[in-house]
Amino acid sequence: MAEQLLDKNLHEQMIRWRRDLHKHAESGFLEMRTASLVAAYLDSLGYGLSIAEEVMQAEARMGVPPQDILDAHYRWAEQNGADIDWLPKFKNGMTGIVATLKTNKPGPVLAYRFDMDALDIQEDMSAGHIPFEKGFTSLNEFKMHACGHDGHTSIGLGFAKTLIDNKEQLGGTIKLIFQPAEEGTRGAKSMVEAGVVDDVDFFIAMHLGIGVPSGEFVAGNSGFLATTKMDIAFKGTAAHAGGKPEEGRNALMAASSAVLGLYGIPRHSAGASRVNVGVLNAGTGRNIIPSLAELKLETRGETSEINDYIRSQAINVLEGAAKMYGVEVEVDIVGEAKSSMPSKELVETLARAAETSPLLKKTVEWSTDSAGSEDATYYMERVKELGGLATYCIVGSDLTAGHHNERFDFDENSMLAAVDVLYRSALSLSKA
Amino acid sequence: MAEQLLDKNLHEQMIRWRRDLHKHAESGFLEMRTASLVAAYLDSLGYGLSIAEEVMQAEARMGVPPQDILDAHYRWAEQNGADIDWLPKFKNGMTGIVATLKTNKPGPVLAYRFDMDALDIQEDMSAGHIPFEKGFTSLNEFKMHACGHDGHTSIGLGFAKTLIDNKEQLGGTIKLIFQPAEEGTRGAKSMVEAGVVDDVDFFIAMHLGIGVPSGEFVAGNSGFLATTKMDIAFKGTAAHAGGKPEEGRNALMAASSAVLGLYGIPRHSAGASRVNVGVLNAGTGRNIIPSLAELKLETRGETSEINDYIRSQAINVLEGAAKMYGVEVEVDIVGEAKSSMPSKELVETLARAAETSPLLKKTVEWSTDSAGSEDATYYMERVKELGGLATYCIVGSDLTAGHHNERFDFDENSMLAAVDVLYRSALSLSKA
Amino acid sequence: MAEQLLDKNLHEQMIRWRRDLHKHAESGFLEMRTASLVAAYLDSLGYGLSIAEEVMQAEARMGVPPQDILDAHYRWAEQNGADIDWLPKFKNGMTGIVATLKTNKPGPVLAYRFDMDALDIQEDMSAGHIPFEKGFTSLNEFKMHACGHDGHTSIGLGFAKTLIDNKEQLGGTIKLIFQPAEEGTRGAKSMVEAGVVDDVDFFIAMHLGIGVPSGEFVAGNSGFLATTKMDIAFKGTAAHAGGKPEEGRNALMAASSAVLGLYGIPRHSAGASRVNVGVLNAGTGRNIIPSLAELKLETRGETSEINDYIRSQAINVLEGAAKMYGVEVEVDIVGEAKSSMPSKELVETLARAAETSPLLKKTVEWSTDSAGSEDATYYMERVKELGGLATYCIVGSDLTAGHHNERFDFDENSMLAAVDVLYRSALSLSKA
Amino acid sequence: MAEQLLDKNLHEQMIRWRRDLHKHAESGFLEMRTASLVAAYLDSLGYGLSIAEEVMQAEARMGVPPQDILDAHYRWAEQNGADIDWLPKFKNGMTGIVATLKTNKPGPVLAYRFDMDALDIQEDMSAGHIPFEKGFTSLNEFKMHACGHDGHTSIGLGFAKTLIDNKEQLGGTIKLIFQPAEEGTRGAKSMVEAGVVDDVDFFIAMHLGIGVPSGEFVAGNSGFLATTKMDIAFKGTAAHAGGKPEEGRNALMAASSAVLGLYGIPRHSAGASRVNVGVLNAGTGRNIIPSLAELKLETRGETSEINDYIRSQAINVLEGAAKMYGVEVEVDIVGEAKSSMPSKELVETLARAAETSPLLKKTVEWSTDSAGSEDATYYMERVKELGGLATYCIVGSDLTAGHHNERFDFDENSMLAAVDVLYRSALSLSKA
Repeated sequence: MAEQLLDKNLHEQMIRWRRDLHKHAESGFLEMRTASLVAAYLDSLGYGLSIAEEVMQAEARMGVPPQDILDAHYRWAEQNGADIDWLPKFKNGMTGIVATLKTNKPGPVLAYRFDMDALDIQEDMSAGHIPFEKGFTSLNEFKMHACGHDGHTSIGLGFAKTLIDNKEQLGGTIKLIFQPAEEGTRGAKSMVEAGVVDDVDFFIAMHLGIGVPSGEFVAGNSGFLATTKMDIAFKGTAAHAGGKPEEGRNALMAASSAVLGLYGIPRHSAGASRVNVGVLNAGTGRNIIPSLAELKLETRGETSEINDYIRSQAINVLEGAAKMYGVEVEVDIVGEAKSSMPSKELVETLARAAETSPLLKKTVEWSTDSAGSEDATYYMERVKELGGLATYCIVGSDLTAGHHNERFDFDENSMLAAVDVLYRSALSLSKA
Repeated sequence: MAEQLLDKNLHEQMIRWRRDLHKHAESGFLEMRTASLVAAYLDSLGYGLSIAEEVMQAEARMGVPPQDILDAHYRWAEQNGADIDWLPKFKNGMTGIVATLKTNKPGPVLAYRFDMDALDIQEDMSAGHIPFEKGFTSLNEFKMHACGHDGHTSIGLGFAKTLIDNKEQLGGTIKLIFQPAEEGTRGAKSMVEAGVVDDVDFFIAMHLGIGVPSGEFVAGNSGFLATTKMDIAFKGTAAHAGGKPEEGRNALMAASSAVLGLYGIPRHSAGASRVNVGVLNAGTGRNIIPSLAELKLETRGETSEINDYIRSQAINVLEGAAKMYGVEVEVDIVGEAKSSMPSKELVETLARAAETSPLLKKTVEWSTDSAGSEDATYYMERVKELGGLATYCIVGSDLTAGHHNERFDFDENSMLAAVDVLYRSALSLSKA
Repeated sequence: MAEQLLDKNLHEQMIRWRRDLHKHAESGFLEMRTASLVAAYLDSLGYGLSIAEEVMQAEARMGVPPQDILDAHYRWAEQNGADIDWLPKFKNGMTGIVATLKTNKPGPVLAYRFDMDALDIQEDMSAGHIPFEKGFTSLNEFKMHACGHDGHTSIGLGFAKTLIDNKEQLGGTIKLIFQPAEEGTRGAKSMVEAGVVDDVDFFIAMHLGIGVPSGEFVAGNSGFLATTKMDIAFKGTAAHAGGKPEEGRNALMAASSAVLGLYGIPRHSAGASRVNVGVLNAGTGRNIIPSLAELKLETRGETSEINDYIRSQAINVLEGAAKMYGVEVEVDIVGEAKSSMPSKELVETLARAAETSPLLKKTVEWSTDSAGSEDATYYMERVKELGGLATYCIVGSDLTAGHHNERFDFDENSMLAAVDVLYRSALSLSKA
Repeated sequence: MAEQLLDKNLHEQMIRWRRDLHKHAESGFLEMRTASLVAAYLDSLGYGLSIAEEVMQAEARMGVPPQDILDAHYRWAEQNGADIDWLPKFKNGMTGIVATLKTNKPGPVLAYRFDMDALDIQEDMSAGHIPFEKGFTSLNEFKMHACGHDGHTSIGLGFAKTLIDNKEQLGGTIKLIFQPAEEGTRGAKSMVEAGVVDDVDFFIAMHLGIGVPSGEFVAGNSGFLATTKMDIAFKGTAAHAGGKPEEGRNALMAASSAVLGLYGIPRHSAGASRVNVGVLNAGTGRNIIPSLAELKLETRGETSEINDYIRSQAINVLEGAAKMYGVEVEVDIVGEAKSSMPSKELVETLARAAETSPLLKKTVEWSTDSAGSEDATYYMERVKELGGLATYCIVGSDLTAGHHNERFDFDENSMLAAVDVLYRSALSLSKA
């Protein structure tokens, strides 16, 4: 029979952590308070820490908030419980951490990824929403942990504590990657390009929920679509539409033509593809030819190749539409993720480890349900490219509302199950 | 030689009025404080007043602000110097006034139109802008008298005083029309449909500036384009663009197709036409199919017939684009004006009267310069339809910046010239 | 060991038939000569024949050629070897035949479908193309058997002869369906709606080639896409583009807007979809606003439901585009097919039968390769709906060039293999 | 009183010429038979002739027919009455002639332009159409003198005869320019660029009809629009729309986007503009992504500047649309004309001369009616640029149907009036 491995007090601690993070929700590249507390705790446990520029390539970040927002949020973090010693190191959107545990015994290098960011969503403040009823809703307007990354961070910390407590059971090296800005698939690339998984033999990312109920576990999720997020600006010339129409260069016409062209990018025979222009804002006054049109768009593909095809066609469409109407176009890639297939051997090993957990009732090897996009795929592809194995697993958790919903909440019990299965995987893999 | 007809103190009083109005700028249908002060003064002079519902057909107003803005502005007016007795009568955007002077002598019915509204523009607050230097810039953010209607209202009051002071020189009946919401061509129609010029033999509207320098006068301006202003909403169905693209009904695609269709409405062989989509806002999130797209557009035509053609084609385009993408479309006409040719006989009479003014150096009978659109054309067309004569004249005024510019200002001396030429026209016409 | 079942002279006869049909290629609904010869032969064998109106619902045909072409081709058939007794019965595009063999023994009703039509392609007339070298290229310009239906018809005749010769081995009833106009998926629906498979227990359609080499056999092909073919006409009003542009109603603008809208129909999350506008012709002169624009388009879907979705969206796009530009639109459905999954039990039975043939080297149960669209799916869906079993099989045949290529030719030996496997299936099924 | 100046037999001769030319209608750059007969006659009168390369710059021709059509038409001309000595000199579309009369007396250089080409229109062959009733309809299918250039050529010949007969009345030098390919505004530029009017002091072009009735004369027509005619080819990549949609580069999508963009080119505040895509043909088969789309378009402007603006915007649209869809675009300018204002002094001189003609009842100095486009404007602009005077006059002629109509015919009496007024202009100007 499966045996209980975890410290009995750990669960309560993880719930406290999670609720504190939920209350102090910080969105992508603003996880300054979060990172300062994570770093302080991991440091106190004895992990070797690499942070900020050491583990992130600044230029490879996508969709970084403007400097004034970075600065304002830093001041907010100072005044809202950040660890004052560590906080200054996480300025300017460099909020990544890699904590390394060297067992000083032979063995492979394992890496686990935990994402820390909240969403730009206004949390619901009404009866029935547990964070409201228990008093830990987000203090920040239009920031909310509506995807469960508060849980992921707590799991990371609980896992870190468990590893330290059981260090002598383990071999090899274990790296815990705390990543900013997974939402919008903006942060992983910068950590991968800084080389944080270049020495890794086994890589595991995990997510709570995603339609899997509490007590179940999926060892390999293969449904992620490759994606690219772009912010577009068409820049023309304003003119009085009645008086001098010929002097205008109409950014809205270019944008409109681009919209029709983008949705018209041909399907790909190798698999599903998507394109969407979710937002378009253009123009200032009824009688002025619009000189600026701004779009937010995304492409997706069942494989990275399909997404690359859609993306390159989209760039053609955007540049051509600008040319048609004599305007300029600026394309800013603000997020990107790949598709990635988990490694069969690692999925099987992980499933076997999960089956020993008393906290899980059911283990599934594979899920192919489409689960949107994930930038954990960057780590997975790099690890596999260099000869390692990688997977993306799901720890089931009953949800009160879907991910990204203003009333999202998860089953806090699933956090302990997550730590348990991760620890069992480490036991199993570190001695491989 | 031309003789001086006006009260010597009048000019100073008009400047005080104008600066007070400039400081308390109120835009279309919000001219509550303005109207209360105008009514109180005209009442004190002994004019018979008809106001609000008596002179405006509520449903014929276009582009009325929402009720919460009307209410909030009413409270502002209460606290910022409105005439407390008259103010309640001008609630809810019914801010029109007709003041009637009966001479009790035989003679025709004359009518003069003065518009009272400011623009939704943020006034410049820097050196060199006279209202700033003299301390009478607008107290209201994003409201500014940037077209000179503060001057027009003051001219109307100065003219009213002059008529009363010289009542025994005049015959017939004289009506002074103080109109809301000329900007966006939204207010005139409601006063015309209420019948305010149905008994009028001679109708005169006037404007300061419009490219004519101080000391000059144009008796008949014929360059106004007919126009229609529309607010459009395409309403579709949101859906997750990655997960269920087939469930969306894309309001942005409809809007984009409409934009291309609108600019493609064929030219008209009978004269100039225009169409512009000045503003388009659509969508809420990058990965959501946009369910709402809102446009601000306008059409123009050298004649009312041409504008009617462009407008009806535009409606086709909008409805067709909605049908293409399975969405609904709502079309709200928020402004409209006609083209109108001044009556030759009245232009000549007015020019002769102007030539006697010592305050004018040059009088021109006709100008055909395009001067945008004007809803005074509603009165002109109605008066001519019923057998009267009508014109639109320009009192020259040196400007510091163009109309609708944030640094717009006019030569205050031109207000006295305006009263002088209007009074001379009344002398000449009222005994006709 | 597999035994030889077929008449030794049959192969030579089939080759003669096939070459005669190839030389006298007749495209959809013009198979008058072909049908007259098929009917005469089957009649001579003793089959009971139902033809024309008895087996086709005229209104359910799609894409029927105009009457003048039907008439002209009839005259051609009269003069080019048609059976003069049977020919008059196949006038006006009613070229379907159902031949029935009643064994007068108990047993199920079997049906086999053979399509007879050529393509509107100009056959290659140069060295290396076997029909050219052997002197049996098409006598009809722009008509060519470039898909192998000449082979299918010959197989049908050879199969008919084999059944009669071995009648006492068989039970139940066997129906041979000779169908017009499979190309463009235009003919099957009319035969299905006439009820020709309403009594059928087992339905088998077959095709030569499709990428499967000589000697191989696929018992169940499941890759057919549902499809709809439409001919579209936008009808506006011509006008002189310089002189009276406002009088035109521009069919080309409507068509252009429709093209962009059609390609922009959203992807469907349930599977692959396609849309294509393959042809657009519009306008008569450079300075005339085009009053007519004609399009040929097709939609496809991995399932009939997906195709229905794309088709209904396409209709919206077409009607909306017409409305946008004030023109009329006519939509003519000229072809349609469903998706259909072969019945598992029948696939297995057929595969077992094929494995006994000495003329086949390899039998595969399933292929999911996308194979375009096929209107045999109409029969399949009807048979399954009424409780029967159905499949679509492929008899491999080495090709000299792809289907629909001007140098297409198949391996004539595969015809005998086809008759052999069909006969084995009849043996196996008719006694079931 | 006005005196009769012309040879009494001239009119009958001109009618014979005109009917022969009408019967042997030759369209742009194919006027080989016409030119051979014109040259032979002018040579016989004693004019000095410059022809073909001497008076045309080959590369500046626009819209020249392909070589096989040029060759075939040459053979037709050989067999249909061309002057066999002169014909070989007019091969390959070099069909221009300049005939020079030197009086050897002092005086200015005058030039008169006559255009010789027919249209690609099928002439009506039914009762009531005079050329049909009198037996001189065009022998060439889809070629017809439906604009009156047969009359212009005859007038040129009659004028040439009159000048020679009255040589001693004249001074200076007179050049008669017989031009090919005025239709489509394709030929003038090549003669202007060859320098044929570089020495000219007074230039006169004339047209019959254009809405002016027989007996009337307009000395200066100023309503011509500048224009550019373009043939466009978008070239992409075909692909099977069902099988490999991602491999196509869709020329029809590019063309459709271009069409919408072209009609959406903004109006110009300085005057009328036009754009039209009169013809679009794309694609070969319903299920093939179109790899070729061909358009015929034209732009127009009230001034050459406005047309230049529209043309340059159009090029942007075309290139941008190609870029959007990853295809190539080829732009071929196949016709071009300028706007041109007649010289006031020459208009007045010509009007005075016309007033002395007994064949004219009414003379008007100016017409501003829009009269389409004319490449005579190339000569006019060059002459004026070099300090000369130029005009375009209209000799009234009652028409049976509008220009370019299949039942067009003009009043043959107007030809004599044309020669008379031209001769009176020569008398008046050559002694200036």
